[in-house]
Amino acid sequence: MAGDRSADSGRRGSTRRRFLLGGAVAGIGAATAIGADHVLNRRPAEGEPAAPLNGEETVPFHGVHQAGVATPAQAHAVLVALDLRDSTDADALRRMMRILSDDAARLTQGVPALADSEPELAVTPARLTVTFGFGPGLVDRAGGTRPEWLRALPDFGVDRLRPEFSDGDLLIQVAADDPMTVAHAVRMLLKDTRGFASVRWTQRGFHHAHGSVRPGTTMRNLFGQIDGTTNPQPGTEEFERLVWNTEGWLAGGTGMVVRRIHMDLEGWDRLDRPGREQSVGRYLSNGAPLTGTDEFDEPDFEATTPIGFPVIPEFSHVRRARSDDPNEKIFRRAYNYDDPPSGSEISNSGLLFVSFQADVDRQFVPLQRRLDELDLLNEWTVPIGSAVFAIPPGCAEDGYVGDTLLG
Amino acid sequence: MAGDRSADSGRRGSTRRRFLLGGAVAGIGAATAIGADHVLNRRPAEGEPAAPLNGEETVPFHGVHQAGVATPAQAHAVLVALDLRDSTDADALRRMMRILSDDAARLTQGVPALADSEPELAVTPARLTVTFGFGPGLVDRAGGTRPEWLRALPDFGVDRLRPEFSDGDLLIQVAADDPMTVAHAVRMLLKDTRGFASVRWTQRGFHHAHGSVRPGTTMRNLFGQIDGTTNPQPGTEEFERLVWNTEGWLAGGTGMVVRRIHMDLEGWDRLDRPGREQSVGRYLSNGAPLTGTDEFDEPDFEATTPIGFPVIPEFSHVRRARSDDPNEKIFRRAYNYDDPPSGSEISNSGLLFVSFQADVDRQFVPLQRRLDELDLLNEWTVPIGSAVFAIPPGCAEDGYVGDTLLG
Ligand code: HEM
Ligand code: HEM
Repeated sequence: MAGDRSADSGRRGSTRRRFLLGGAVAGIGAATAIGADHVLNRRPAEGEPAAPLNGEETVPFHGVHQAGVATPAQAHAVLVALDLRDSTDADALRRMMRILSDDAARLTQGVPALADSEPELAVTPARLTVTFGFGPGLVDRAGGTRPEWLRALPDFGVDRLRPEFSDGDLLIQVAADDPMTVAHAVRMLLKDTRGFASVRWTQRGFHHAHGSVRPGTTMRNLFGQIDGTTNPQPGTEEFERLVWNTEGWLAGGTGMVVRRIHMDLEGWDRLDRPGREQSVGRYLSNGAPLTGTDEFDEPDFEATTPIGFPVIPEFSHVRRARSDDPNEKIFRRAYNYDDPPSGSEISNSGLLFVSFQADVDRQFVPLQRRLDELDLLNEWTVPIGSAVFAIPPGCAEDGYVGDTLLG
Repeated sequence: MAGDRSADSGRRGSTRRRFLLGGAVAGIGAATAIGADHVLNRRPAEGEPAAPLNGEETVPFHGVHQAGVATPAQAHAVLVALDLRDSTDADALRRMMRILSDDAARLTQGVPALADSEPELAVTPARLTVTFGFGPGLVDRAGGTRPEWLRALPDFGVDRLRPEFSDGDLLIQVAADDPMTVAHAVRMLLKDTRGFASVRWTQRGFHHAHGSVRPGTTMRNLFGQIDGTTNPQPGTEEFERLVWNTEGWLAGGTGMVVRRIHMDLEGWDRLDRPGREQSVGRYLSNGAPLTGTDEFDEPDFEATTPIGFPVIPEFSHVRRARSDDPNEKIFRRAYNYDDPPSGSEISNSGLLFVSFQADVDRQFVPLQRRLDELDLLNEWTVPIGSAVFAIPPGCAEDGYVGDTLLG
C-alpha cells in the first residue's frame, strides 16, 4: 500500500511534517535561520480560527509504489525530461537517484531540500508528489534489463511529433495544488541533476484549482469535455492489475506514456454542439453517454436511432477507445496545457496526456492503434510529443527510487 | 465604492450569480442546453456538506472603478496586449469595448459569454476579474486627450527591453483563483477582439494557490522574498489618493505600469543569506526590516552597526524604493512567472511587476529612476519588458468600459 491516496493520509502527514520541520530547523544549513512560525504563514490573528490549510497537506513519499500515480491528480504539474551526460555511468546514476530521492522525500513533506536555496518556499507542500521515470537510455546505461515496451512508441498516422516534446532518459513529474510549490520543487531537483543530465523538455499542465470544484469532480479539458470518467479506480483490484508491473526490478512500478496533444480550439468551435457530442459519444453538459442521463451511466453501444443508426456513432472516441479485452485498458491522468501562442497562433492549448499501465505494448499500443485508424476526434487533435518511461517502484526510508535497478 | 474588495462581497456576488445563471439558462443560445446542477459540479452526495466552493466566489464587474486593481490579488493572471488593426476607428473601438464589457460582465459572474463556445467552462468564476487598459495608440485612435504620462517609459540604464514583451494598444488583465477559469475567459475575450486587433504579447503569472496559505499572507516571489509588505492599502484615504485618477475621461481610473523583470535565480543562489538580506534590507525568514523583528515593523533607516555602517544599507532596495515625498508612491500588484526555459537556459523566471498609480510620471518614474541609479537588487534582476496603460474607470450596468472616452 502506498498510502498515497486519501485526504486523510494527507492530514496525518501534516503532523509529521511539523515534526520533520522541527528537525530540519535544528539540523540543516540555511534552514536554521527560519523560525517555522514565521515561515509558514502569517499567524492567525486573535479569535481567527486556525483552519487547516490546503497548503499543509502532504502525500507520503516512501512506500511500495511511487506517489503521483494513484494520487488524486493535483491542480498543477510540471513534467521535465532530461538527457544523461555521456559521463553519467551506473555509479553516477546511483548517486543522482540517491540525491533526488532525498530531495523529494524532504520537499514532499514540506521540509527544505538539503542546502535548499529558498527554504521558505519549501514549507507549503500542498500535496506535492515527485515521481521519477526511466527512459530506455537510462536503463541501458544502468546495464539493466529493459522491458520490451520501453522504447519509442510505433509510428501512428496521426502523429506530428516534435523532438522538443519527445523522448528523454529521465522523467521527473512534479505535481502539487500550489504552483509556487511546483516551481520551487522543480528548481531544487533540477539543480541536483546538473552534474548528471541536461534538460530536454519541460511541460506544464493544470486542472481546476483545489477547492474550486467539489472533490471527486471529473476534470474538464479545454474542449469543455468531461475527461476521465471511465478510468480504473485506485484501490480496486482492476487498478492494481492494470497499473502495477510485477516483473524484476520494475515490480511495484508501472509504465508511463506521455503524449502532448495539440487541440485545435478554433476548428472545434466551428462544430455545432451535436457534432461535438457525437465525435466523443457523450454529452458536453454532464458527460453522460448519448444513451444515458448521468455521467457514470454505462454507454449502450447497441442502441440505435429511429432510422437505424447507432446512437453512439462508430467513429466516436469512446466507442473506439473501448476494448472487449479487460486487459487492454489504461489508467489516464492527464493535464490541460495552455501556453502563450507564438507567431500568428491564436491559441497553443491541448492535453498533456499521461497514462499509466503495467505493459505499454499490450495495453496502450492497441488502443492508440484503434484511435489512429478511426476516431472523429482526430480531426481536432494532433499528437506533437511522445515519450515512454518505466516508473520504478517506490522506495523504503533507507532506500532510493531506482534501487531495485541500480542497487 | 467599487465594492470589489472583500471575500464578503464575493459571497454576496455568488447569490447574484445563481440568479443571473438562471436568466442565462433561460435566455442565451448554447447555454440553454446546460442544466446548471450538472454543469457546476458533481452534486454533493447524501450527507456530504454542501460547503461553499472557492470556485463560486464572484467579484462585481460594474462599479465606479474597474475590478482587478483594488481586488485582493488572485492566484493566477494572464495579461494580454493587443495591437489595433488599421481599420479599427473610433466607431469600431466603441463596438469592441461594448462587446468585451458584455463578455466580462457575464464571465466574471459565472455566466457564459454570448455564444460562448464552451459554456461549461464559464461556471466557476473563482473571483474572476477582467480589467481593460488603453495604450497611447488606442487613445489617439479614439481622438481623446492623452494623459501626459501615457507613453513608453523613459529609458533606464538597467533595461534590456524586448519588443515581444513591451507596449501595446489594448491591455486585458484576466485574473482568477482557478487557472481553468482564466484560460477560458482569455479565449472568449480574444475571440471577440479578432475583427479589431491582434495579439501582441501574452504573459502569465501566479501566486500561492487560494487556500494554500492564510488569507492576508503577503506573497513571496521566486527569490523567496516576501514581496508586497509596504503597499498602500485598499480602502484607505492614501490608496484612494495615490491610485485613482481624477481628470477628464480617466476620473475613477488609474495608470498601469507592466514590467517583465527577469530574475537570475542562479546568481542569487550563489549569494549567501546575509548578502541577500542586505540587498533588500529585510529578512528572508519573515520579511522584517533588518532593524526589526516583525514583517510590519517600520524600518529604522538611522540605525547603525557598532562600527558605524547603516544597518539597512544605502544600496538596499527598500531604502532606494522609499521616498520622503508622500505622493511619490505606487500600488504594487505583481505576479511571479516561471515559463519553460528555452535553449540552454536553466530557468526562465521572474516577476511580472504590475503597479497602479494615478500619475505614472509623478509616482512611478522618479522611483524607478532612483532604483536605476543604485539598488543592489539590480545585480540579479533585468527588466525585459515594459508597457504603460491608462485603466479607464468602471462602468454602469448600461454602460461599457471606455464609455467616458468613447461614449
Ligand atoms: C486531445 C486528445 C483527447 C481528448 C480530447 C480525449 C477526450 C476524451 C473524452 C471526452 C472521453 C470521454 C470521457 C471519459 O471516459 O474520460 C475520453 C475517453 C477515453 N479516452 Fe480519450 N481523449 C483524447 C485522447 C486519448 C488518447 C490518446 C487515448 C489513448 C490512446 C485516449 C483514451 C481514452 C479512453 C481509454 C477512454 C475511455 C473509453 C471508455 O469509455 O471505455 N484518449 N477521452
Ligand atoms: C524583480 C524585481 C523586484 C524584486 C525582486 C523586488 C522585491 C522587493 C522586496 C522583497 C521588497 C520588500 C518588501 C515589500 O515592502 O514589498 C520590495 C519593496 C519595494 N519595491 Fe521592489 N522589487 C522589485 C522591483 C521593483 C520595482 C521595478 C519597483 C518600482 C519601480 C519596486 C518598488 C518597490 C517599492 C516601492 C517597495 C516598498 C519600499 C518601502 O519600504 O517603502 N520594486 N521590493
